[in-house]
Amino acid sequence: MNNLLVAQSGGPTAAINATLAGVLQGIQVTNQIDKVYGAKHGINGVISDELIDLSKVAKNLDALELLKNTPASALGSCRHKLSNWKDDDSEYKKIYEIFTKYHIKYFIYIGGNDSMDTVYKLNEYFKFNNYDIRVVGAPKTIDNDLNLTDHCPGFGSAAKYIATTIAEIKKDIDVYDLPAVTIVEIMGRNAGWLTAASALSRLNGAEGPDLIYLCEKEFSNERFIADVKEVMKKKKNVLVTLSEGIKYSDGSYVSDQNSSGEVDSFGHKYIAGAGKVLEYLVRKEIGCKVRSVEFNIMQRAASHVASLTDIKESCMLGEKALRCALDGESGMMAAIQRVSNNPYSVEYISVPVEQVANHEKKVPIEWISPSGNDVTEELITYMKPLIQGELQHRYENGIPKHISLF
Amino acid sequence: MNNLLVAQSGGPTAAINATLAGVLQGIQVTNQIDKVYGAKHGINGVISDELIDLSKVAKNLDALELLKNTPASALGSCRHKLSNWKDDDSEYKKIYEIFTKYHIKYFIYIGGNDSMDTVYKLNEYFKFNNYDIRVVGAPKTIDNDLNLTDHCPGFGSAAKYIATTIAEIKKDIDVYDLPAVTIVEIMGRNAGWLTAASALSRLNGAEGPDLIYLCEKEFSNERFIADVKEVMKKKKNVLVTLSEGIKYSDGSYVSDQNSSGEVDSFGHKYIAGAGKVLEYLVRKEIGCKVRSVEFNIMQRAASHVASLTDIKESCMLGEKALRCALDGESGMMAAIQRVSNNPYSVEYISVPVEQVANHEKKVPIEWISPSGNDVTEELITYMKPLIQGELQHRYENGIPKHISLF
Repeated sequence: MNNLLVAQSGGPTAAINATLAGVLQGIQVTNQIDKVYGAKHGINGVISDELIDLSKVAKNLDALELLKNTPASALGSCRHKLSNWKDDDSEYKKIYEIFTKYHIKYFIYIGGNDSMDTVYKLNEYFKFNNYDIRVVGAPKTIDNDLNLTDHCPGFGSAAKYIATTIAEIKKDIDVYDLPAVTIVEIMGRNAGWLTAASALSRLNGAEGPDLIYLCEKEFSNERFIADVKEVMKKKKNVLVTLSEGIKYSDGSYVSDQNSSGEVDSFGHKYIAGAGKVLEYLVRKEIGCKVRSVEFNIMQRAASHVASLTDIKESCMLGEKALRCALDGESGMMAAIQRVSNNPYSVEYISVPVEQVANHEKKVPIEWISPSGNDVTEELITYMKPLIQGELQHRYENGIPKHISLF
Repeated sequence: MNNLLVAQSGGPTAAINATLAGVLQGIQVTNQIDKVYGAKHGINGVISDELIDLSKVAKNLDALELLKNTPASALGSCRHKLSNWKDDDSEYKKIYEIFTKYHIKYFIYIGGNDSMDTVYKLNEYFKFNNYDIRVVGAPKTIDNDLNLTDHCPGFGSAAKYIATTIAEIKKDIDVYDLPAVTIVEIMGRNAGWLTAASALSRLNGAEGPDLIYLCEKEFSNERFIADVKEVMKKKKNVLVTLSEGIKYSDGSYVSDQNSSGEVDSFGHKYIAGAGKVLEYLVRKEIGCKVRSVEFNIMQRAASHVASLTDIKESCMLGEKALRCALDGESGMMAAIQRVSNNPYSVEYISVPVEQVANHEKKVPIEWISPSGNDVTEELITYMKPLIQGELQHRYENGIPKHISLF
């Protein structure tokens, strides 16, 4: 018996289930695999022996289509990091025991750079012990910060949500003829890719954000206020987008500031995001109407506005990860190589997971405008293809239909 | 010359431009109107003589379709409340002067209950002075709180956004196998209709919010914590939705601890942050992972997930308002009367604006479950038809295409 195990890990995205669907689709066209299992809640579900049989789902084309439309990890997720097996191999032994019990020869782990750390360590451990088990990673992260892949599945859909929503917010805030500042805080602790995507809202000729601050560049309160005042000379409504992880020159996060000094009725200091901190700053320094908005969970869960390109590529990466495993590759991650921008085309490759695990790919500093408050055309050229196309959702009763696997 | 003036007022919605499109469409099939103007920024634009000629747009079917897809008020908006003309008629004189200058015989004002106050006062003033000008209101508000209309245009689209997004958030938060509470704060200062719409996320059989708190019922911190603990006995992840305007038994807003004390020009208190307050409470009383999410501007601007039913009805209400004006009605508002639920059908009527202005229609207390933390089947039956159908958006470059009128 040669069985396959698949699991999902890390923060959910709108496309991570498309990668799972890709794995399951791929199984239909090979005779090398007998049974396919899914582990609940990532590697934790392996350790705790919570495997579910996915063979039926894999044969159900309708279920696979629904899976591509369902946000977040249908198999559940975890944020568990394996210890170093040379120090403590108890979890590794447990995992191998489960693999043996279920005759797992292939393991595909869909996740971000922390999950690739798991792929790396497991592969090293299996290799060291001469266990014939192939461990392959399939990437996902809305943050687009994985090494060695042109871009990350899940990012395109989040970027499309952000571009669409910023275009809508721009329409909304422009209705009043009064000085106002709207600050939108976007996910990205260390990489500003998602915040940069707010610039795509300008693609149809409308004005997008007036000011864009990525976490790759030092943030300065003084420059920010000066920038806002400068924009206000030309227009009343200022729209600002910024990464949650913007930092001052001393390396401290803007969000760490509790400049308001306010406490709630429980005596807790008001824990503010970067957007909230700057909302207070604008109120204090400029005194106009100001609001801050957080895209929060929505930016990673909004599968109803997923990018068709992203969903298709995510699916292909699942198939590619499976192909790598069947071809005998291990300790590798499926990845995307861009072939050309016009027409947009990509190839699916495999890269050593060791060079992906625990690395972060940031926005190149030359793709941020010299003023530090916008992005360049090069960035737009890179990002635009990733949000193209709309998924045809199955709506029932007025809301999108999703699938549950357990 | 018999000209028509149309303007938009109050908070934007995803459907307010569909009502404008309805007015403009209607003009094509009557010979009673020579020219159609739009005032920028509501009644303020009348007073400041900022009228734009909409005759060309009205004839451009493509532009009208785009208008139905464009969120927020394409003519701009305001929150200006007219003084009582018996005390001070200076603004009224100015308005009449502009109406005379542009030969305005018909004025359609699209807005919520504050805007209907403007319709009411203007009509009274014109009548008192024997000016032959007809003033008709067309409703809009995401809050669904207008009197004498079964429901409000703009509400269905906001409700569809909320139901869709809550379904997605539910998928997202369920991925981790850890105790966690997610609190979603939804717009609604005095009426809980939008928060109630979160229950529609269950329509396809999935679990929706576990607890729903509307501002119509007294809120209690103790009961809330007890409710959350009760849910946690059965499942780890608790999803809560609540109205921004939930109040304690003493009448104070839950959010008052974060209130700035500011009031808007209508005397409404600026409130924000009930979700944040309860996030702290859960952290203190239960100690598990907890986050709060605000739907903020997105819930009223998300035209990309607009309800087709809402957009069609909003359009029809614009046509109905025009029809009322042409038929000699004044001081009236176009409204929706539900004829049946199954099949869903409505009629368009006109109602005296006096009974709409400055009133608020709340969720009937019997539509809230006795436990105070959910809604009843009757509410679902009422609300479900309003989110049906999806608008076919014109996407270009990966984002929805919008129109600008100035």
